[in-house]
Amino acid sequence: MTTNRIQSLLQQMTLEEKIAQLTQLATPFYKGASDGGQITGPMAELGITEEVVQNTGSVLGASGAKEVRSIQETHLKENRLGIPLLMMADIVHGFKTIFPVPLAIGCSWDTEEAERSAEIAAKEASVSGVHVTFAPMVDLVRDPRWGRVMESTGEDPYLNSEFARAFVRGFQGNNMTEETDRVAACVKHFAAYGAAEGGRDYNTVDMSERQLRESYLPAYKAALDEGCEMVMTAFNTVEGVPATGNRWLMRDLLREEIGFNGVLISDWGAVKEMIPHGVAEDEKEAARKAIEAGVDIEMMTSTYVHHVKELVEEGSLEVSLIDEAVIRILELKEKLGLFENPHRGADVEREQELIMHADHRKAAKELAVKSSVLLKNSGILPLKTEQKVALIGPFAQSGDILGPWSWQGSKEEAVQLYDGLLEKSSGIFVAKGSDIETGSEEMLNGALDAGEKADVIVLALGEHSDMSGEAGCRGDIRLPEVQLELLSTIKQLGKPIVVVLFNGRPLDLTGVVQECDAIVEAWYPGTEGGAALADLLYGDANFSGKLSMSFPHTVGQVPVYYNNYNTGRPQGAPDAQVRYVSQYLDIPNEPLYPFGYGLSYTTYEYSGLQISSETMTPDETLTISVDVKNTGSMAGEEIVQMYVRDMAGEVIRPLKELKDFEKLPLQPGDKKTVSFTLTEEQLRYHHINLTYKSDAGTFTVYAGPNSRDVQSATFTLLK
Amino acid sequence: MTTNRIQSLLQQMTLEEKIAQLTQLATPFYKGASDGGQITGPMAELGITEEVVQNTGSVLGASGAKEVRSIQETHLKENRLGIPLLMMADIVHGFKTIFPVPLAIGCSWDTEEAERSAEIAAKEASVSGVHVTFAPMVDLVRDPRWGRVMESTGEDPYLNSEFARAFVRGFQGNNMTEETDRVAACVKHFAAYGAAEGGRDYNTVDMSERQLRESYLPAYKAALDEGCEMVMTAFNTVEGVPATGNRWLMRDLLREEIGFNGVLISDWGAVKEMIPHGVAEDEKEAARKAIEAGVDIEMMTSTYVHHVKELVEEGSLEVSLIDEAVIRILELKEKLGLFENPHRGADVEREQELIMHADHRKAAKELAVKSSVLLKNSGILPLKTEQKVALIGPFAQSGDILGPWSWQGSKEEAVQLYDGLLEKSSGIFVAKGSDIETGSEEMLNGALDAGEKADVIVLALGEHSDMSGEAGCRGDIRLPEVQLELLSTIKQLGKPIVVVLFNGRPLDLTGVVQECDAIVEAWYPGTEGGAALADLLYGDANFSGKLSMSFPHTVGQVPVYYNNYNTGRPQGAPDAQVRYVSQYLDIPNEPLYPFGYGLSYTTYEYSGLQISSETMTPDETLTISVDVKNTGSMAGEEIVQMYVRDMAGEVIRPLKELKDFEKLPLQPGDKKTVSFTLTEEQLRYHHINLTYKSDAGTFTVYAGPNSRDVQSATFTLLK
Repeated sequence: MTTNRIQSLLQQMTLEEKIAQLTQLATPFYKGASDGGQITGPMAELGITEEVVQNTGSVLGASGAKEVRSIQETHLKENRLGIPLLMMADIVHGFKTIFPVPLAIGCSWDTEEAERSAEIAAKEASVSGVHVTFAPMVDLVRDPRWGRVMESTGEDPYLNSEFARAFVRGFQGNNMTEETDRVAACVKHFAAYGAAEGGRDYNTVDMSERQLRESYLPAYKAALDEGCEMVMTAFNTVEGVPATGNRWLMRDLLREEIGFNGVLISDWGAVKEMIPHGVAEDEKEAARKAIEAGVDIEMMTSTYVHHVKELVEEGSLEVSLIDEAVIRILELKEKLGLFENPHRGADVEREQELIMHADHRKAAKELAVKSSVLLKNSGILPLKTEQKVALIGPFAQSGDILGPWSWQGSKEEAVQLYDGLLEKSSGIFVAKGSDIETGSEEMLNGALDAGEKADVIVLALGEHSDMSGEAGCRGDIRLPEVQLELLSTIKQLGKPIVVVLFNGRPLDLTGVVQECDAIVEAWYPGTEGGAALADLLYGDANFSGKLSMSFPHTVGQVPVYYNNYNTGRPQGAPDAQVRYVSQYLDIPNEPLYPFGYGLSYTTYEYSGLQISSETMTPDETLTISVDVKNTGSMAGEEIVQMYVRDMAGEVIRPLKELKDFEKLPLQPGDKKTVSFTLTEEQLRYHHINLTYKSDAGTFTVYAGPNSRDVQSATFTLLK
Repeated sequence: MTTNRIQSLLQQMTLEEKIAQLTQLATPFYKGASDGGQITGPMAELGITEEVVQNTGSVLGASGAKEVRSIQETHLKENRLGIPLLMMADIVHGFKTIFPVPLAIGCSWDTEEAERSAEIAAKEASVSGVHVTFAPMVDLVRDPRWGRVMESTGEDPYLNSEFARAFVRGFQGNNMTEETDRVAACVKHFAAYGAAEGGRDYNTVDMSERQLRESYLPAYKAALDEGCEMVMTAFNTVEGVPATGNRWLMRDLLREEIGFNGVLISDWGAVKEMIPHGVAEDEKEAARKAIEAGVDIEMMTSTYVHHVKELVEEGSLEVSLIDEAVIRILELKEKLGLFENPHRGADVEREQELIMHADHRKAAKELAVKSSVLLKNSGILPLKTEQKVALIGPFAQSGDILGPWSWQGSKEEAVQLYDGLLEKSSGIFVAKGSDIETGSEEMLNGALDAGEKADVIVLALGEHSDMSGEAGCRGDIRLPEVQLELLSTIKQLGKPIVVVLFNGRPLDLTGVVQECDAIVEAWYPGTEGGAALADLLYGDANFSGKLSMSFPHTVGQVPVYYNNYNTGRPQGAPDAQVRYVSQYLDIPNEPLYPFGYGLSYTTYEYSGLQISSETMTPDETLTISVDVKNTGSMAGEEIVQMYVRDMAGEVIRPLKELKDFEKLPLQPGDKKTVSFTLTEEQLRYHHINLTYKSDAGTFTVYAGPNSRDVQSATFTLLK
């Protein structure tokens, strides 16, 4: 893999140049940037010299063809060996054209659309000069208090893995050297960042290695199987050691066992954070541990620059560890064609054409339609054009629908819900009702006035985007009090109420579900959100989205997820005692809305679950089929789900595990048979000694519209 | 250890007799019991024959000297080899004289009183015929949703270990063969039962082996170091395998590594529960796994009786595994002197004298005084005799103050709060105000009437005892709504309010703290609760209790405990950003009341923390001293606490770890110096490869009145 060019460069590089190559700094450090090259303020605290900047290997957060070209051009003039910079940035769910947040995309169960969204994001980002995106984030999530659940596709290892592959394909394409409209992907955050204790960002993660391997690793591995070029370390600890300094995690597991040979980058500042974590006394020890763990690029701290040379010279670090990191970085540059074409896709003219192209907005709208989830509908939806609508709430006329991880997105360009409805409605009265966290009598009265005039009320409620995302953690996951009051006040009008939710996490909907007639979970739907929602609310499009993360009844139930275990005293077992079972006295064990759940404007009838055989050997496959009929009056697309349960294992096995699904378009009255193929490989799990294999024995297969309402059959695996 | 008698018995026993010896059944199976010997109803479902009953080795829940003697007598007549029965029962915090619940005892930090409580429990239990108690429960707890936190001494490995030792000493004494007023102890629940996911009883436990060893195992090991005779398996899984069938946990860790050679008993029905857990296809597999794991006694299921013989005969189980279990059980019988003295302490006459002896009640009162925690006091406490008091609330005149694990305790014998106050007050008006979970206008009016007449209001609120304890888990850990309404209604009278809480878990006190002038956490204080509380409320005794488990602000903060880790982005660090730190947006990271916290009627001033040296070698000890002065006007006993933090380890280390404490009696104006000795052994922890050792480096020591308000100094461990 290592070419002559890279070998030759490596031989010419001084140790200082090598170390600087491993450092990533933000745009303002670079002379070519507008207002760049002035290392002051917090930047000065890094103690980085101009010479180091000249020799760094990559830039964080640069974008815009003109500026990126300028940074690269200036850099190539000043860098002794003419090694181009890698331009990296967080392009998470769209660059300028913003798609729904990943948790919403997860609810589409549509990996093709997800791939397309990443392809479009890559197109816009690459023409703006970006080479690498810090995506996909594939962290499995079970705690809605955690602010970054919006950046994940949800709670299921298999679904997350499918999306991980789709995003990587979409970002990277087939050949990044030639396809300059693609960007390298960086899967994150390795590993288990989603399991922060108490749902508090950056917090300690503790779990068994089996849990890590069984639930958390699959999605990262899927991204890497798909050829993902980079990996980012997680902020959290794994097995007591911060991921960024975790030799076992990075060397033994990621590099040796999984076979990853690409660039491993720290998350922002994570190398130095080993000091407050308490596993490094000082920056020098942090640098040593990160290098030893195999972290190639240090992002936004300067422990490598200040200490690696000394560590090498005193014999504490082998220079070969530095060399291998440099080689991996140079190899990525080569793969991206930067030595021949240092500006790559960055093109000021094409940038104008491509950014926010109508096709991109159309794709964003399509994905928003598929990502919204209809949680409740007592028949009031779809709305009728002739109905007079009161659109009330802090999200009625808000552009804050792009989500917290869309720094390049423009709220001004976002289609607000009001704009969308205006296209459809014959009469619409709008009132804010309240702000997101505060309100006034006057606003409330305005809402009552608007509601009074209407046939139906659409209440647009939610969390502002800073209430989720990185460090956006909440101990109370209800809507803010003032919005619950708005709802209960409006309720007094006696008009039908449709609640449309804009938010970044599963919410506790106490005080919402019983008070309204319909609930649409819109998440942060992106640039075309209002247009997509208008189509859905008026029935010009049908709902098909299904939750990829459970909605708890209350925060007191967290964590609640579908693929949990049975315990020795399960609730509801035939011989269960009233008291001595695993349950709460005051709330159910089950979530309010389970994984896989979502309604539509039509109804589907499941019948005739069949398996091709009651036994299966490891060489055979099993076909599981189920008939699904559209028994309503509207065309729709049903996400048919297939789960498996291993009835007895060497270790406990989940009550259900998603093994396959199909998106099935059905016209009214149509009935189709969906067939899934099951192989022995899909029945494997990690045993007591962590070997990954299946056991002979009984399995139950389930098929249905969600993880709760299923049909079942059993078969025996023979060995 | 194995005597000739045991060898001889073993040789005479048939395989069936051996297997029956491993089975434990409840009292009604036995002919000698009143209404016994009629195997009907649910009992019949076990498929146990009269012959099996005749050969069983132990009885569950027998007590009362007369009945126990009758069971034993009948048994010895019918048992072919004349092997006496072991009588086992749950004597958790007192037999008839009920002491405060263990979580309350934990708050006393008084291991001598704890030992005395166990000694008294043993005295009452043994004279009633009990040989073995299923206590102490030493499970570390961090989730107040879990109902059994009341049965634990709290969240700290060291404090739990000290109590584990004290309880074992108290139950067992020095020589159980001779001291027939003692009972054998059975430490439970091995292991990590307190970490049930979501705080839901019996639920899956998942943690790293390091976490298991570092936090959860120490208290079990402490009990065993103290000579605890038995161990009970936990209902939960450990490393993916139910504890009861977990060979690694029981054989490798408990028997081989820890060196436990006593009797291991399953929890109620836990062997058969391997089937719903999904690690056994049927009872036969469950039996095999339990035997292989080394479970000597199967409690209340019959998988051994029905399947072990077949397993041995078909060669799936070695008979030596059965023999070793039988030997361990017979050895325990021998140690208890049952072969010579099968009735042991059971004595109908002495039973009358001893049960509820005045000395026992006195000890119960003393411990209740030391277990109550004063959480808030704006100066209204202590009450003055001349004040007219309105005693209001569902616990004003309630005997439900014994806690959920006191089956032999009599609520009628309990001193109610009203009875206690009556002794002190010159005028007392009483009203219920509400029931525990429901109320009425009429009750509320009664409360207002009572309050109107008084100078001060004592509100006795809480959870009924079924709201905690086994399977008593809550998703909402506030006081029931109706009691919060009672408080806010009473508040309108404008009179000072003292809230006295009777409950089995740390509560979310939202709606309580701001509404009242003082809060006394009485827990379930036991038989003498009302008397102890009256002494405290009137200042005839001073508060000294300190929380052994943190009180969260809300359930959305769970788990919250003092010995957590720093993360890489701690809140409040000098360079912390406003947003990007580990925190919730809406609630604090810290608990409402931290571990170690508790007020008294006097004030203590801490000063002059000193360490004997700034360095320490592994052979040296360090002396940490701090001056504590009683700066108030009442004598008191202050619990002085000493914590340590390892500033940098190979793995992350807790922010603070309790290493020692002292109960310091101080007269007003007195100043004393408390000295703690620190050894290298106390600085050890489990490294990456799980070796247990200390590292050279910097440590911080803290001393103070609780885990939050501390003075600190640093030293360096040299190696």
